[in-house]
Amino acid sequence: MELHDFFKTPALSSVREMRPLIHCITNYVTAGAVADMILAAGGSPVMADGVREVEEVTERSHALVLNLGTLREETVPSMILAGKRAARLGHPIVLDPVGAGASAFRTETARMVLREVSCTAVRGNRSEIRALFLGESHGGGVDEAPETPDFQKEEVMAFARDYKVLLAVTGTADLITDGHRICTVRNGDPMLARITGTGCMLDGIMAAFLAVSEPKDHFAAAVLAVAALGLCGESARKKAEGTGSFRVRLLDEMSNLCDEVLRKGVQIEI
Amino acid sequence: MELHDFFKTPALSSVREMRPLIHCITNYVTAGAVADMILAAGGSPVMADGVREVEEVTERSHALVLNLGTLREETVPSMILAGKRAARLGHPIVLDPVGAGASAFRTETARMVLREVSCTAVRGNRSEIRALFLGESHGGGVDEAPETPDFQKEEVMAFARDYKVLLAVTGTADLITDGHRICTVRNGDPMLARITGTGCMLDGIMAAFLAVSEPKDHFAAAVLAVAALGLCGESARKKAEGTGSFRVRLLDEMSNLCDEVLRKGVQIEI
Amino acid sequence: MELHDFFKTPALSSVREMRPLIHCITNYVTAGAVADMILAAGGSPVMADGVREVEEVTERSHALVLNLGTLREETVPSMILAGKRAARLGHPIVLDPVGAGASAFRTETARMVLREVSCTAVRGNRSEIRALFLGESHGGGVDEAPETPDFQKEEVMAFARDYKVLLAVTGTADLITDGHRICTVRNGDPMLARITGTGCMLDGIMAAFLAVSEPKDHFAAAVLAVAALGLCGESARKKAEGTGSFRVRLLDEMSNLCDEVLRKGVQIEI
Repeated sequence: MELHDFFKTPALSSVREMRPLIHCITNYVTAGAVADMILAAGGSPVMADGVREVEEVTERSHALVLNLGTLREETVPSMILAGKRAARLGHPIVLDPVGAGASAFRTETARMVLREVSCTAVRGNRSEIRALFLGESHGGGVDEAPETPDFQKEEVMAFARDYKVLLAVTGTADLITDGHRICTVRNGDPMLARITGTGCMLDGIMAAFLAVSEPKDHFAAAVLAVAALGLCGESARKKAEGTGSFRVRLLDEMSNLCDEVLRKGVQIEI
Repeated sequence: MELHDFFKTPALSSVREMRPLIHCITNYVTAGAVADMILAAGGSPVMADGVREVEEVTERSHALVLNLGTLREETVPSMILAGKRAARLGHPIVLDPVGAGASAFRTETARMVLREVSCTAVRGNRSEIRALFLGESHGGGVDEAPETPDFQKEEVMAFARDYKVLLAVTGTADLITDGHRICTVRNGDPMLARITGTGCMLDGIMAAFLAVSEPKDHFAAAVLAVAALGLCGESARKKAEGTGSFRVRLLDEMSNLCDEVLRKGVQIEI
Repeated sequence: MELHDFFKTPALSSVREMRPLIHCITNYVTAGAVADMILAAGGSPVMADGVREVEEVTERSHALVLNLGTLREETVPSMILAGKRAARLGHPIVLDPVGAGASAFRTETARMVLREVSCTAVRGNRSEIRALFLGESHGGGVDEAPETPDFQKEEVMAFARDYKVLLAVTGTADLITDGHRICTVRNGDPMLARITGTGCMLDGIMAAFLAVSEPKDHFAAAVLAVAALGLCGESARKKAEGTGSFRVRLLDEMSNLCDEVLRKGVQIEI
């Protein structure tokens, strides 16, 4: 796969044209920011986690995000029901194991969701990915635990193959793999780690990009989603005077980003 | 009713003087934005949905917002209890059937609340209003479903009469009716649909405007609330560089808006 | 204690170096803003309230915030479990009795938490502190009830002694006492009361400052936390064009604040 192949994939222009409905079962810390980011990318967010409606909401949607931040026991059945329904309908599903490794409850739930639901993609930081696939706990919270070892490319490729998922391990550099191909995205800015919810925002953008592309293009779509948010982070940083205005600018940038600028700005190593 | 009659109604200056306490039973996606918007308009927000306290909180408040976003089963009794108490006390009640039509649970709950609680006003987009009064489901989420037919004025006036509510159908143009009078508000900007929660914010502003006016002025108060947010959207758009700064500016504009500027800026067709 | 003694206490530089993990059991209105503020100050927030994980999350954290906004019955056991565990581990615990006095449920829960959990600090406005320590109800919501009487210094010092807590009563001027010493912080700006969640943000900052200081320095750390947010409010006000940009600037200021600027800007009366 060559770099220019990525750009055969429908990205922002398709999201804006098709306006996919993204069903998010997510946390109350970043839900508003995620909804805004999905809108900025051109999708339509719907946050719904009540067990009585999640299947129906999923049925009308085009992709599903399962995000474990502020997880409560009563939300787990909603995630499983929505996840199974989405899988049956062929909708892309993005799992974000927020805080996996920070408590047994989060780790076990993340692993259970991964087992029960045919997820399309999993996105997390290194600590969360270690917890999810290796069962490791760590001394951090929802931010990456300090001194978490880097992954070997072969290691994350094996996870992706074993679980038949796209895997996006985000951090200083981002690794994305489908188990057979792997690439590193070098877009981004350290400021992205200084506001809450950039990972959750990426879940939403990735779901929107996956929703408008064919399964054979899912790998490229996931890579572009990661690059898009990173690129917005780079531009936002230049205009920001602190973390507050960085958050505002990040959303501005996404709402103004187009595929041409994305194409010119991506830093992808294949 | 002539245009200048609207301005006999107490609006922003009264809200800022009386500082009404607005009890919101609302969703976790936009709760912070709604609280900020109520504060910007001059009211005082209190978000409380626990069944053990909603009646008492309502009793100390001056208006109630029932917003069905991120609805969960356990919140329904809280809405009914608070709604009945508020009605008994003569407090204005604003119902926002967020996502009605997107799931049977939302549609049924919205219809049940409308039946059980004497709401003062109902605010929604066209899809939600169709779901609420006609039981129609639709293929959208919480944003307006594409290609939802426009309402005939007679149709929404009949809904308002049948259910004895003020009805505000917001969209590109906004229709507000009390069943006998109807007017169209043409303030606003398409950018308002590109951030999450502008509908929810309007619930809060409307509740604050209703709280400081007599029942005979409720129609005018509702119209002014709709115009006020739309006007802020127009000014915010001029200063915004994307959806992030639009959100920030929208709040800035409301916090700076005064009745004189509102009076000059409204675009109301009677 | 002299003014320069306050600055022997580790403050922002220590928070940024040690990056304490702050476990927040808090409300869904301001959770995102609090997380961002903790990050801006240099800490790492983790919002987790599920009863199955709160003890484990607390165990890995360095401080605990118990904030009663949007309280629900099912969260109370989580607060007690996390609080007892944190106390046993010697972690600083900040209790924010949001809305105490606005409903019996909030007042009783706040009093129960204070009784059951060895809190390090309690932060509230005058109405909430009256409700918590005197059992008074009031006609306000979560904002300070109008015309709440000022406290006598002796009165709040007695509360602090009786309950063995640091007490921060915030408002136009802020009183902080450990029962033996008391000081008034005059930093701040009225704009801080015009956005939602500045009290909640202060909980988070205070927890972070307490987390990096020895118990003997907790009083100074609490005072500096109050002064730091107030000082950011002053600077933010100068650059803000309304409440929306004030919120953004407030976060910018905290993310850029350093101990030297804090030291020069504090207005503390001992």
